Amino acid sequence: MDTVSETNVRPLRSLNLLSHREISELMETNAEVFRQFRQCALAVLNTDSQIDDAAEMLTRYADFNIEVVPQSRGLKLKIYNAPASSFVDGVMIRGIRDHLFAALRDIVYSHNKIAKSGEFDLQSSAGTTDAVFKVLRNADIVRPNQAPDLVVCWGGHSISRAEYDYSKRVGYELGLRGINIATGCGLGAMKGPMKGAAVGHAKQQLRDGRYMGISEPGIIASESPNPIVNELVILPDIEKRLEAFVRLAHCVVVFPGGAGTAEEVLYLISILMHSKNKNKPFPLIFAAPESSGLYFSSLNRFIRNTLGEEATRCYQIIIGQPDKVAREVKHGIERVHRFRRKTQEAYYFNWQIEIDRALQTPFIPTHENMAGLRLDRELPAAELAAQLRCAFSGIVAGNVKAFGIEQIAEKGPYQLRGDPAIMAELEQLLQQFVQQRRMKLGAGEYHPCYELQSG
Amino acid sequence: MDTVSETNVRPLRSLNLLSHREISELMETNAEVFRQFRQCALAVLNTDSQIDDAAEMLTRYADFNIEVVPQSRGLKLKIYNAPASSFVDGVMIRGIRDHLFAALRDIVYSHNKIAKSGEFDLQSSAGTTDAVFKVLRNADIVRPNQAPDLVVCWGGHSISRAEYDYSKRVGYELGLRGINIATGCGLGAMKGPMKGAAVGHAKQQLRDGRYMGISEPGIIASESPNPIVNELVILPDIEKRLEAFVRLAHCVVVFPGGAGTAEEVLYLISILMHSKNKNKPFPLIFAAPESSGLYFSSLNRFIRNTLGEEATRCYQIIIGQPDKVAREVKHGIERVHRFRRKTQEAYYFNWQIEIDRALQTPFIPTHENMAGLRLDRELPAAELAAQLRCAFSGIVAGNVKAFGIEQIAEKGPYQLRGDPAIMAELEQLLQQFVQQRRMKLGAGEYHPCYELQSG
Amino acid sequence: MDTVSETNVRPLRSLNLLSHREISELMETNAEVFRQFRQCALAVLNTDSQIDDAAEMLTRYADFNIEVVPQSRGLKLKIYNAPASSFVDGVMIRGIRDHLFAALRDIVYSHNKIAKSGEFDLQSSAGTTDAVFKVLRNADIVRPNQAPDLVVCWGGHSISRAEYDYSKRVGYELGLRGINIATGCGLGAMKGPMKGAAVGHAKQQLRDGRYMGISEPGIIASESPNPIVNELVILPDIEKRLEAFVRLAHCVVVFPGGAGTAEEVLYLISILMHSKNKNKPFPLIFAAPESSGLYFSSLNRFIRNTLGEEATRCYQIIIGQPDKVAREVKHGIERVHRFRRKTQEAYYFNWQIEIDRALQTPFIPTHENMAGLRLDRELPAAELAAQLRCAFSGIVAGNVKAFGIEQIAEKGPYQLRGDPAIMAELEQLLQQFVQQRRMKLGAGEYHPCYELQSG
Amino acid sequence: MDTVSETNVRPLRSLNLLSHREISELMETNAEVFRQFRQCALAVLNTDSQIDDAAEMLTRYADFNIEVVPQSRGLKLKIYNAPASSFVDGVMIRGIRDHLFAALRDIVYSHNKIAKSGEFDLQSSAGTTDAVFKVLRNADIVRPNQAPDLVVCWGGHSISRAEYDYSKRVGYELGLRGINIATGCGLGAMKGPMKGAAVGHAKQQLRDGRYMGISEPGIIASESPNPIVNELVILPDIEKRLEAFVRLAHCVVVFPGGAGTAEEVLYLISILMHSKNKNKPFPLIFAAPESSGLYFSSLNRFIRNTLGEEATRCYQIIIGQPDKVAREVKHGIERVHRFRRKTQEAYYFNWQIEIDRALQTPFIPTHENMAGLRLDRELPAAELAAQLRCAFSGIVAGNVKAFGIEQIAEKGPYQLRGDPAIMAELEQLLQQFVQQRRMKLGAGEYHPCYELQSG
Repeated sequence: MDTVSETNVRPLRSLNLLSHREISELMETNAEVFRQFRQCALAVLNTDSQIDDAAEMLTRYADFNIEVVPQSRGLKLKIYNAPASSFVDGVMIRGIRDHLFAALRDIVYSHNKIAKSGEFDLQSSAGTTDAVFKVLRNADIVRPNQAPDLVVCWGGHSISRAEYDYSKRVGYELGLRGINIATGCGLGAMKGPMKGAAVGHAKQQLRDGRYMGISEPGIIASESPNPIVNELVILPDIEKRLEAFVRLAHCVVVFPGGAGTAEEVLYLISILMHSKNKNKPFPLIFAAPESSGLYFSSLNRFIRNTLGEEATRCYQIIIGQPDKVAREVKHGIERVHRFRRKTQEAYYFNWQIEIDRALQTPFIPTHENMAGLRLDRELPAAELAAQLRCAFSGIVAGNVKAFGIEQIAEKGPYQLRGDPAIMAELEQLLQQFVQQRRMKLGAGEYHPCYELQSG
Repeated sequence: MDTVSETNVRPLRSLNLLSHREISELMETNAEVFRQFRQCALAVLNTDSQIDDAAEMLTRYADFNIEVVPQSRGLKLKIYNAPASSFVDGVMIRGIRDHLFAALRDIVYSHNKIAKSGEFDLQSSAGTTDAVFKVLRNADIVRPNQAPDLVVCWGGHSISRAEYDYSKRVGYELGLRGINIATGCGLGAMKGPMKGAAVGHAKQQLRDGRYMGISEPGIIASESPNPIVNELVILPDIEKRLEAFVRLAHCVVVFPGGAGTAEEVLYLISILMHSKNKNKPFPLIFAAPESSGLYFSSLNRFIRNTLGEEATRCYQIIIGQPDKVAREVKHGIERVHRFRRKTQEAYYFNWQIEIDRALQTPFIPTHENMAGLRLDRELPAAELAAQLRCAFSGIVAGNVKAFGIEQIAEKGPYQLRGDPAIMAELEQLLQQFVQQRRMKLGAGEYHPCYELQSG
Repeated sequence: MDTVSETNVRPLRSLNLLSHREISELMETNAEVFRQFRQCALAVLNTDSQIDDAAEMLTRYADFNIEVVPQSRGLKLKIYNAPASSFVDGVMIRGIRDHLFAALRDIVYSHNKIAKSGEFDLQSSAGTTDAVFKVLRNADIVRPNQAPDLVVCWGGHSISRAEYDYSKRVGYELGLRGINIATGCGLGAMKGPMKGAAVGHAKQQLRDGRYMGISEPGIIASESPNPIVNELVILPDIEKRLEAFVRLAHCVVVFPGGAGTAEEVLYLISILMHSKNKNKPFPLIFAAPESSGLYFSSLNRFIRNTLGEEATRCYQIIIGQPDKVAREVKHGIERVHRFRRKTQEAYYFNWQIEIDRALQTPFIPTHENMAGLRLDRELPAAELAAQLRCAFSGIVAGNVKAFGIEQIAEKGPYQLRGDPAIMAELEQLLQQFVQQRRMKLGAGEYHPCYELQSG
Repeated sequence: MDTVSETNVRPLRSLNLLSHREISELMETNAEVFRQFRQCALAVLNTDSQIDDAAEMLTRYADFNIEVVPQSRGLKLKIYNAPASSFVDGVMIRGIRDHLFAALRDIVYSHNKIAKSGEFDLQSSAGTTDAVFKVLRNADIVRPNQAPDLVVCWGGHSISRAEYDYSKRVGYELGLRGINIATGCGLGAMKGPMKGAAVGHAKQQLRDGRYMGISEPGIIASESPNPIVNELVILPDIEKRLEAFVRLAHCVVVFPGGAGTAEEVLYLISILMHSKNKNKPFPLIFAAPESSGLYFSSLNRFIRNTLGEEATRCYQIIIGQPDKVAREVKHGIERVHRFRRKTQEAYYFNWQIEIDRALQTPFIPTHENMAGLRLDRELPAAELAAQLRCAFSGIVAGNVKAFGIEQIAEKGPYQLRGDPAIMAELEQLLQQFVQQRRMKLGAGEYHPCYELQSG
């Protein structure tokens, strides 16, 4: 591998004004957190690479290392055997340097602060929201005095060329309209909209385009932020990351994906169906190229037949017509703008939206938890959506996450049980995912990690 | 009085990104702190006024009031019966609005944080320095990546016209050389250098001139920040304010003043004589117009004869020649710049300089404490300087501060006792202050608040 | 004299992108124009000095010289024996360097271009206006896409302290309202409003305040631009300078002055009374401190009794109340703003206003021309105002200008003849100017340079 | 076709401060120039389209029209039936609007000025250079006070995918090093480097990247500027465009092309071999991907065998290694920087380089002129290079330009005659171009438009 054997870098924007005490606290962070940081740092330095497997990356760069070196005037990073592609003539590329310190800031520093300081009541809903806000503020993601202009884009990170091109085209139309983009900061539907928007912004001579990558340690370790990202923030865990998306968004566009995307959609619908969130505008658009319209027609049918007609009023579906998507996003953002102004609410953070405690809590996909899900039509739609979200979360884990795969290997497929009508719909939707090869990347026949039973 | 009966203002820069929890914490601040804030707010709003007596101001604007109003998207201030001079056609002047929120930030918010959070070990030297740094960072006073360019100017706030004009002329020469100014933010030698520098900066087409006012609640309550100040920070107490001056300064210029100025000089000399501070460049210049040369020749003689020849090497004295003062400041700053670069130290905060714990601790001018001072030639110079600093601090209090005046009224003059040689010098210096009418403002004969005794 | 014996300076903003041919053309300029430039350059370099007599300045700095040195990459100035006050540690102050190249640009370069190129039909009204516009554009004075915000201030350059302080106070109130200032760029009423506005702008944290000095070679040679001026332009002659004022102004404020100020007022009233200028808003305010109210009550009476009641509707008079002046200016500017928007006119240059050819033509104050003036009530008011303007112009020349003084010395006082009612009013007004010592600076009894006769 | 039926646009940056006289002069421009402008305007509005044939474009948008509408506050454009792709929700894309007014400025306004004013002696070398400089200055392309950083990229506009990708990769490496790009502003090797550099700049967080398109009316009419171009300038003719490239460049990189690229290379070598240009650094790099190395090895052989070994010292050839190209560019620019500083020359325009009058004069490819070329080894190399440049120019015309194609159709192939050794080399080079399909785009067998004869 082509590497740079040793280099020192200093912070550019983040962490460049630490007190001596803050530096020494940072040095005392436990080894596990540092290990996590090292892994993320390697991913950041490995940008543009096609490897999206943390383990493979760590093997390939086995002698990579990174040290935080305290100094009187601040800290610096000492880096050994970093991928050469992050450097130009021996100097680290500025954008990468920025991401590196964003990772240090969020993984070590903020994390530390949230975990150790005792300042946050993470058992309460308000305390959790407070923590999310402070991580974002510390990362300079929330900013006062700016009109609403942020669309959050979701969708698969491994999608077809047609889907990717479509997401780029939508991004282009959004960029032409001056809209900024936040995504999960990886590839596929997370890169396409940014790439398109960058061209749109350039044509409109907008130089301050924001391409926000919102990640969490597990994800970023295995997936480098795409090179367009110019603001990176790493939330402590998956649920806080989802909450960050929801509270930052002035509009959400969902592109096709797989079970993971379905999980995100159900998470959001659960929120939007909450009785306290009625009448609060929250534009949500499902958008797909014509060739992939099936993904959303299936999902739409599933939602209608499980959560009811009302749930389908939370979103609109647009097939093709990237300019129409962008126009609808713009109108949606204007609606949000008017509402926030009228209600004297902040533009930069959606304090108003109610997020149920259950949705802030990690779902651990043990067999027991999966079997315990209540897939019951008697539940209020918001709650049922939350339960379904957990089901998909478990399936994603069983498909691709280390913990889930281990569980399945040990105990066989997850057993999901519920209302026959719901189970039938679920069966059908998952079936389609399998047929469309959206269940699991890579080759071979798909062996379901779940079994569905009525009753 | 011409007042504006009711108005609302929102934050411009400070405090415009608070979380809901931060807002509610702020609302729970105890009444005493709010009372202090109200008093400072009135002083800020009363800028340009000639009143420098907090009590008189409060009487005149008896129905002035200010409330912090929490709102979802941040807080706002509701202000009743504010002096009309702070408004233009019903809208608060932007600079004043900024100072108002700086006061709220530092008096209520930071103060709160420092006092309540338990985060700071204010009993330790490092903890105190940490607190000073964080107040300054929170106020955006310390900034990375800027070459050293800050001169701190000290001197009397009530000085002669010739002295004021001279300080302005020095400021002008400093401004022409691109140097920024920090002072105690009131009148006299705190206003002159800023006013001059503003003209110098304008002539050099420098639009980012910094005019930093560094205050503390007791001072700002009785003295409005002068209108040139464009960055205001309020440290929690007198000692932290002095430390802020020392750690921010790349050079200090002292203009004539009275006993208070002597106190500051002795504080600084005590630091510079500390064995750990040898060989760390810290340019210090005493500057006076020709008509006031006596102030520094007396002070110089006093220092030589009490602290020894070496102490006089800490500073240079320049009489007249404002351009020479500016040139020496510039050279001094360049020396500091080279040193910090060589030693890899921060430019924005002097972490290196050692400040003895004693100098970080408030001196309470009771008769007992005054009598207990060790004015003894056997002491190391740094310690003796610290003792002398306390003596002057007490005299200032006895002259003009509420607590000191009460003590004197109750128990008669302070009794200072010490080495005959020292006492003789002290006698002579104070005598000259009296003759030059530097002891106490206002009318009448001066009745000393002290008695000096050898032994 | 303290001088800098030799120095080189390069352009900062003006003239820093010349072609080789432009440089060589510039070198071929005739000696007279260079002589004029040298004189102005000395005045610019002598800023802050109290000398306002060109001859005295030239004597004092007899060995001052300035050369334009052509170079491949542009030109530079070589300067010998310049006043040291323009330098800081051997480097020319940036603002002065800017003024120096503004003078070179306007006196040599633009002048050259206008005189030699044959591009301008200076015999036509449109051609003259075109030339005025291009000098202003070349000086970067006119700028697109900015809302109207410019007030032109006129008045005496040698006024009483009370009048100066009042003009400063008005400037302060204008600055607080974000209004920019243009004046004739000298002292007195030309400096006061700028100085005040600079403080007002600073308090409102406006960093882009414009302090425009609009001059012509004869004036600038004898009067340094005041140090606040940050944009300097030198029109080729007095009439083009007056036209520049009128076409740039969104509002005009006149402070007390002498006969010269009366001349300017009559020039402007002549324009405003033009039949084509009816219904075009052009706010004009006469403002004086209470102690100087007489100046405008006299002038007002004179205008009413010679030009008629309608002429007095061109302006309003405000005595004292600097904040009211500023409010009226602001309202006037808003009126102009609305009108320009409605009529799709430029904000930066008043193309609409009609200026009669006669007002664009220099009036040469020979005895013949003075005697030939038609001070006749039968004339339309606009024309009579123009004739009266010439009368005052002649009186100013007879009082203080070299040419006029020579004429008087040779041929005795000017003979003015006209309608008895007009002559009586003129007599009375001039009488008051004499009594108020507004006729001529300096000492001694005033010997009128004119004789008034009815018939 | 999807069009916008009628729209009005106002200038953003160019032409937004015209005087009334300038506007009326512009309106009097002759119809032919307006026709040319209309054609270019259509090309600009048709950006991103794949049509590169002016005639086809004009046919497709037959009812497209554009009018200049004079108004008091400036001019506006009224546009009928413009391609809808230039608009977003009815508003013209800002970058396209900018290009439109750049075209108006350069084709109508500057052109006008150069042709009609009589100001320029276009018969002289100095006068021509003066005109080139002024067009560039008027377009804000030359700027003072910026360190050299501009690389000019040449090469074919219709190249292979591998060549395009390589040029993009080189652009990326240049962008990472902060280097700006100028090209002929079309597709292929004119787009690739810009596209790559945009990504490189973004990764280095450089927001002021310059992507300069330098065109002339004939070229731009048939080829839209690529959408990355953010500064567009249109020189009056081909020779002035080439001169603009040479005088702006701090380094030139040539990518593979066809006969047109060979023409440009010989033009530049003719300049560099001029005796007055010895010892003036002018870095020139030929760069190709490995698969296209042959292009430059052929060209290199041709140059060595016709112009001599010395001519080959004007350039270096790099195959593959895009990072090496960028490093060499950077070193070359640094060499130029040092040289210009040492010789006190402008950074923004290479006044020093001598361009022979012959190279400033259009070569008209009649059969007579072609037959009259002196392809003679006895000529000094610089002159022979100029003759060869004309030969290639004729061949390009015979292949693809309307005039040349007509000539050939009428009189048969051009007859080129010269030194046998030269003719043999020429034969061989042209042969290779034919084999590599670099002679003419599109299909079919290539029929040479020339016949080569020794003698």
